[in-house]
Amino acid sequence: MVYMISEVTGGNDVGYKLCNKRFIIVGPVVHSEDITHLTVFDCGLIAVVDGKIVAVEETANNLAKIQQEHSICDDFVYHLVEGEFLMPGFIDTHIHAPQYPNVGLGYDKQLLDWLSTYTFPLEKKFSDLSFAAKVYEAIVKKTLVSGTTTAVYFATIHFDSTVLLADIVAAQGQRAFIGKVNMNYNTPEGYGETTEESFQMTEKFIKQLKELQNNLVQPIITPRFALSCDMPLMMRLGELASRCNVHIQTVLAHGVYLTDDELQVLAARGSSVSHCPNSNTSLKSGLCDVRRLLDAGIKVGLGTDVSGGFSPSVLDAIRNALDVSIHISFGKGEDYAPLTYREVFYLATLGGATAVALDDQVGNFKVGKYFDALTVNMKNPGPVDVLEQYDTESLVQKFLYTGDDRNISKVYVAGCQVK
Amino acid sequence: MVYMISEVTGGNDVGYKLCNKRFIIVGPVVHSEDITHLTVFDCGLIAVVDGKIVAVEETANNLAKIQQEHSICDDFVYHLVEGEFLMPGFIDTHIHAPQYPNVGLGYDKQLLDWLSTYTFPLEKKFSDLSFAAKVYEAIVKKTLVSGTTTAVYFATIHFDSTVLLADIVAAQGQRAFIGKVNMNYNTPEGYGETTEESFQMTEKFIKQLKELQNNLVQPIITPRFALSCDMPLMMRLGELASRCNVHIQTVLAHGVYLTDDELQVLAARGSSVSHCPNSNTSLKSGLCDVRRLLDAGIKVGLGTDVSGGFSPSVLDAIRNALDVSIHISFGKGEDYAPLTYREVFYLATLGGATAVALDDQVGNFKVGKYFDALTVNMKNPGPVDVLEQYDTESLVQKFLYTGDDRNISKVYVAGCQVK
Ligand SMILES: [Zn+2]
Ligand SMILES: [Zn+2]
Repeated sequence: MVYMISEVTGGNDVGYKLCNKRFIIVGPVVHSEDITHLTVFDCGLIAVVDGKIVAVEETANNLAKIQQEHSICDDFVYHLVEGEFLMPGFIDTHIHAPQYPNVGLGYDKQLLDWLSTYTFPLEKKFSDLSFAAKVYEAIVKKTLVSGTTTAVYFATIHFDSTVLLADIVAAQGQRAFIGKVNMNYNTPEGYGETTEESFQMTEKFIKQLKELQNNLVQPIITPRFALSCDMPLMMRLGELASRCNVHIQTVLAHGVYLTDDELQVLAARGSSVSHCPNSNTSLKSGLCDVRRLLDAGIKVGLGTDVSGGFSPSVLDAIRNALDVSIHISFGKGEDYAPLTYREVFYLATLGGATAVALDDQVGNFKVGKYFDALTVNMKNPGPVDVLEQYDTESLVQKFLYTGDDRNISKVYVAGCQVK
Repeated sequence: MVYMISEVTGGNDVGYKLCNKRFIIVGPVVHSEDITHLTVFDCGLIAVVDGKIVAVEETANNLAKIQQEHSICDDFVYHLVEGEFLMPGFIDTHIHAPQYPNVGLGYDKQLLDWLSTYTFPLEKKFSDLSFAAKVYEAIVKKTLVSGTTTAVYFATIHFDSTVLLADIVAAQGQRAFIGKVNMNYNTPEGYGETTEESFQMTEKFIKQLKELQNNLVQPIITPRFALSCDMPLMMRLGELASRCNVHIQTVLAHGVYLTDDELQVLAARGSSVSHCPNSNTSLKSGLCDVRRLLDAGIKVGLGTDVSGGFSPSVLDAIRNALDVSIHISFGKGEDYAPLTYREVFYLATLGGATAVALDDQVGNFKVGKYFDALTVNMKNPGPVDVLEQYDTESLVQKFLYTGDDRNISKVYVAGCQVK
């Protein structure tokens, strides 16, 4: 039995990372098989060795056998208590780490005004590494505490502070894609790059992250959006992506205004949409019809889009996705089905993993995948009291609709407990 | 200087009520003058004597003079710290206290199905006083902790447990209207009354609450809705209301489907609408166009409608009211103005007070009104970190969009601190 305990600095608080080499959790388990199947085991079992799932069982009947098979002694068999269940970690497919200080501010403006008034002046400040450290420590800690086991981050144009974000993510033990933002066209005063700088620094950033040799943290090429990158830069980034085998993220107006033809192109290319309902509403961008995207065969995950969205929690994205879908349904015929909480559970976990091409590694509980998971405890003092005994799926509903970070008692990434 | 400290039992927890006879709070103050004016004093002052406001100042310049005038020694002058501000308490104009155990459950159903599957079976159980005590202690505590200084409660048809709710509200020190529900028509198995019972028990309930002689707690006549009360009962309740000078509350489909003619009738009668955006969405009732109600001269407050709505917090109603209004605006012309956070701040405070005809007593900070207030602390560890220094109105925005009960550090009702 090997214990590795390493300290993580997180502002004034000191977090920790507890990595048990092998353990078993017994209790209610909930995860998605696919968008139409939410699987609930009222008393299931998951065994983890070296961060990966080695057994998933619908009951605990084979506990002794599995312990023996994987040499797991009783001290490392954890039984969930009443009110608790285990679920996959949340995947935030779109979040701007540097914009965290601005959450809750400036929603009297729409996107372009908001960018120039609130966002760009803040992002500029990330040339200052000590400012960057303060913000990045805080947002990584906040998203982990809120159950985000995988985050896909936009940083800023600055090489040094973007590397710092990667270091902080690695130290705190989150799984992430991290993008140095590219902006060489139509840029605001004091916040832009030449084509050459933009390309060179991106290439250097990819190299630097590969040298980190942390298999949780990967670079992603991040042209901000079509308005801020010219075609020569786009071409060179495209070449870089295919040469280094790196993903690309950009802002396609969040998929709100896609035509049928554009949907077909996205589906054909295997592109994914990050559905960011809070930001779409808060910045008055429009309503994104996720049902239509799904029907067109497009992969969809959820994103918080901090600080266009005001919440760093995927639970907020879940509730807003449900609301938006119901509101869209009011204008449709009887045969239009708004998203259900079971479908949105999928989008927040396996759907997000699929959208960022990590579904072979995380997103649900399958043997061979990494154990990225949350222990939810609805009896913890949180936003609502749990006054009676409920079945597991009712507890899941209560968590999705009424829970918050106080109800997430443990967070695991690749088998390490990081909360 | 007189201290009155009385203990309040609150389930396993013991709350408290601290009533200083006279005190002054100095610091940032925010409140609504009317729907178009949000007043912000960066360092204001409010003096309270015997639960009522005796001075409101834009600066602290006259502090010494006001202390002298009202015999308030330095020990009872409280200075807010950085990140804090003072605002009026929230007014929840519509909440079903007995439905609290069901929050988060059953939103796969629409109103009538949901009532028969989830709500009526639960409400029936309130013939059991010990069950009622558990739920009512919890919901009153939860709403107070969430900043609801005035709540307008639906209880159940049961006389005894509805009196118990009134006792619990009085003990915990909340301001409230409490209604014994009337249902004599088309009632579910085991949950209904005869016309005579319904009338008698309502009259007895009013008498009982007047005997309580607690001026925070008032009875309100509560015919559930048109579907569950026949005309003879409605007539008798109307007569009772005018004889005893008691308000009436009922469910007009939450004002979602009102015609222009109906709006005119409501405006002419001085009726108010409780806007419950969470419930309207969660039960798929529709979108309520608050702008249209306001333009028709109708008084509007916010309601949580627990458990049709899944959150007992008015902050949730604030965010949902903004979302719904923005979503309605997507289908309107350029001249349609969605609600702003300043307007919704009004709806949650003075607007709610006006809707329930308490605007001469609470809702904002005016000399002669009761001091029903919240100390908000955005530096408390809550759902987001406050990483920089912000002006008062930015802190208010951050609270409205991103705060939760953890950011509400003190709650006052009639000058008594109840959190
Ligand atoms: Zn974005
Ligand atoms: Zn209701």
